[in-house]
Amino acid sequence: MKAKITLIPGDGIGPEIVREAKRVLESIAKKYDHEFIFTDIDMGGCSIDKYGVPLTDEAIEIAKNSDAILLGAVGGNVGNSKWYNVAPNLRPEAGLLKIRKELGLFANLRPALLYKELAGACPLKTEISEAGFDMVIVRELTGGLYFGERYTKEVDGIKTAVDTLVYNENEIRRVAKVAFDIATKRRKKVISVDKANVLDSSRLWRSVVEEVAKDYPDVTLEHMLVDNAAMQLVMNPGQFDVMLTENMFGDILSDEASMITGSIGMLPSASLNESKLGLYEPSHGSAPDIAGKNIANPLATILSASMLLKYSLGLDKETSDIENAVEKVLKNNFRTADIYTQGMQKLSTSQMGDKVLEYL
Amino acid sequence: MKAKITLIPGDGIGPEIVREAKRVLESIAKKYDHEFIFTDIDMGGCSIDKYGVPLTDEAIEIAKNSDAILLGAVGGNVGNSKWYNVAPNLRPEAGLLKIRKELGLFANLRPALLYKELAGACPLKTEISEAGFDMVIVRELTGGLYFGERYTKEVDGIKTAVDTLVYNENEIRRVAKVAFDIATKRRKKVISVDKANVLDSSRLWRSVVEEVAKDYPDVTLEHMLVDNAAMQLVMNPGQFDVMLTENMFGDILSDEASMITGSIGMLPSASLNESKLGLYEPSHGSAPDIAGKNIANPLATILSASMLLKYSLGLDKETSDIENAVEKVLKNNFRTADIYTQGMQKLSTSQMGDKVLEYL
Ligand SMILES: CC(C)[C@H](C(=O)O)[C@@H](O)C(=O)O
Ligand SMILES: CC(C)[C@H](C(=O)O)[C@@H](O)C(=O)O
Repeated sequence: MKAKITLIPGDGIGPEIVREAKRVLESIAKKYDHEFIFTDIDMGGCSIDKYGVPLTDEAIEIAKNSDAILLGAVGGNVGNSKWYNVAPNLRPEAGLLKIRKELGLFANLRPALLYKELAGACPLKTEISEAGFDMVIVRELTGGLYFGERYTKEVDGIKTAVDTLVYNENEIRRVAKVAFDIATKRRKKVISVDKANVLDSSRLWRSVVEEVAKDYPDVTLEHMLVDNAAMQLVMNPGQFDVMLTENMFGDILSDEASMITGSIGMLPSASLNESKLGLYEPSHGSAPDIAGKNIANPLATILSASMLLKYSLGLDKETSDIENAVEKVLKNNFRTADIYTQGMQKLSTSQMGDKVLEYL
Repeated sequence: MKAKITLIPGDGIGPEIVREAKRVLESIAKKYDHEFIFTDIDMGGCSIDKYGVPLTDEAIEIAKNSDAILLGAVGGNVGNSKWYNVAPNLRPEAGLLKIRKELGLFANLRPALLYKELAGACPLKTEISEAGFDMVIVRELTGGLYFGERYTKEVDGIKTAVDTLVYNENEIRRVAKVAFDIATKRRKKVISVDKANVLDSSRLWRSVVEEVAKDYPDVTLEHMLVDNAAMQLVMNPGQFDVMLTENMFGDILSDEASMITGSIGMLPSASLNESKLGLYEPSHGSAPDIAGKNIANPLATILSASMLLKYSLGLDKETSDIENAVEKVLKNNFRTADIYTQGMQKLSTSQMGDKVLEYL
C-alpha cells in the first residue's frame, strides 16, 4: 500500500526517538512492499523559534492531507525556557491542542500495562503488581474544559477567571463507541469514570454511555467516580480493562496509570478522529534534560508507530511484527537507561533502534 | 472552656464511629474541666428518610450556631440504595455540599501520612515507602466546578450539559494563606497544583498564589501540573509537605494520597471557614457494607475530633493528648479489622474507643 505519513520530531528527545521509529517504519515498508512517503513538519518550541507560533497553518495542512501522523514530543522546561514567557496560545503545548482540535482527534487511546520483564520498576508492592494489569484508557480529547469558553475579567475590581466544561451527547456517544469497540476485542469490560454526584456534564455522560452500552450486550459497563478511580488505580489496577473518561479526568488518570506501570518509556498512545487519520505519540514527554544524548528510550515511539499501522493503515500483521520485536528485545534483556537494571545490557537510543530492526 | 459541638452521625458506620469520638471528647472535657454541649443533627440518607431532604434548614441553623461540627459519614451504596433514585440535589451528598457552602467552609485540610506501624499496608513498594511521607493537602472547598453555574439543555435537539469552573482572586488568596500558614508550622514547602497550561482559572490561581507567597519568605513555593502531581504522588510522595489545590483537583488528589498511605481508616480531615467554625470528619466513607457490625475503625474520627480541638477551640494540649493516645494504641499493637495484620491484637469499634480512653 501507499501511505503519506507526517512526522513531527518536535522538541527535546523528540527528534532522536522519531528517527528510530521512522527506521522501523521503513523496514516494515521494505519487508511488505509498502510505500510510505514521509513529510516532516515543525510543532512546539522548534516551530516557535522558526515561525513565532507553535504550529503554522501550512503545517496543519500537511498533517490533514496525510494518512497518519507520528509525533515525538513538544515543549521544554516550563520553568526556565524562553518558550514560556509568552501568551498561553503561543506556547509549545498550544500546538498540540491546536492539532487535536483542527483534526478532530476526539479519542485518545492510552494503554497502560505492566511488562512482565519490567515489573521490578513498578512502584506498587509485589502483592499488587504480581497479579499484573493491562488496561487501555480511552480519553475524550477535543471537548470539556480544554475547549470550552474561557476568560478572565474584573468584576467590581476583583479578578475572576472562568473555564467552561461542555459536552453534548454526540461528543460523548462517539468516544463511548470507541471504548466499547475496543472492549469487544479485549476483556469486554468498560469502566466509565465521571463525577456524576456533582457535575451535570457527568450525568449526561453517564446516561449517554448507558445508551451506547445497550448496543454491546457482551460488554459489561461499570460507572466509577473519579476520586474513587484515582484510588483504585493504586489499590487494584488489575480490575481495569477499558477505562472511558472525559478530557480532564483522562489527563490526570492516564498519567497516574502510566506511572504505576513504572515504565512510561514503553507506553505509546493514539489520538483518532472519525476518519482513519490519527496522531501517534509516546505517553512520555520531551525530557529536555537528556535531549541530544542518545540515551532516550525509543520504544514508546516505535510502539506508537505500530499503533499507527494498525489504526490508520489497517496493517495488523505489520503491527504484530513490531510488537513481537519489542517483546523479544525485552526478553533478551536489552534495555535503555530509563528501564535498565543490573544484569541487563544497556543500549543507547540508536542501538535500541538497531536491535528492533534486527528482530523485525 | 464552654463549647457547643454539633454531632452529625450520618449514615452507614457514621453513628458507631462518632459515638467513640464523642466519648473521647467527653473524657477530655472531664480531664481539663471543659464543658462541651453536644447537639445531634441529621444529614444524608437518614435525613432523607425522616424529612425528605438531605439537610434541613433547622439542622443548618444548629450547625451555624455551634463552635464546631463533628461528622461521621453520609451516603449509601450508590448503585442499590433508594437514596439515589432521586434528583441530585436530594441525594445524601447534597447535604455535604450544602453545609460546606452555607457555612463557607472554604479550606479543606487533609493530612496523608504513613504511620510507621502501618507501613506494611502501604500499596507502594518498600523502596518508596521506607522513606516515609507526611503531607497535608489543602483543598479549596466552596468554589470551582462544584459551585459554578450548571445546566443541561437541548441545542437543535442535541442534549448539551455545561458546568462552570469559576474562581476569583479573593477565593484563591484566602485558601492560599491557609496553606502557607500551615507550611510555616511544618517543613515550609508549598506545592501548588494547577493546570496552568490549559485553564484560565489555573493561571489566575498561579499568579495569586505567587503574590501570597511573597508574604511568606521562609516558605518555598513550587508549581506542579495536576497530571504530573498524580504521578508524583505514586513515585515520590515524600517530596510533598503542603499541597495546595482547587476543589476538583483536590478531590482527586487527596483521595489518591489517602490511598497510598494504605490506611485511610486513620486519616482525619478538617473543613474551615473564615471564623473558627469548622467541620471535622474522617477521610473515609460511610462503608454501608460493614455498618452496625461494630468493626469499623473509629480512629480517623477520633483524630478528627482532635483536629476540632486544635483548629476550632484552640486547645493544643488536649489535641496532643489524643494524638499521643492514638499513637500508643498503634505502638502497643492494637488494631481494628481494616488495619489488622498477623500478630496484632484485633479490637472492635467500641473496644478501640475504650483503648484510646484508657491511654488518655
Ligand atoms: C501538554 C498538555 C496540554 C497535554 C494535555 O493536558 O492534554 C498533555 O498533558 C497530554 O496529556 O497530552
Ligand atoms: C461526596 C462528594 C460530593 C465529595 C466531594 O467530591 O467533595 C467527597 O468525594 C469528598 O471528597 O468529600
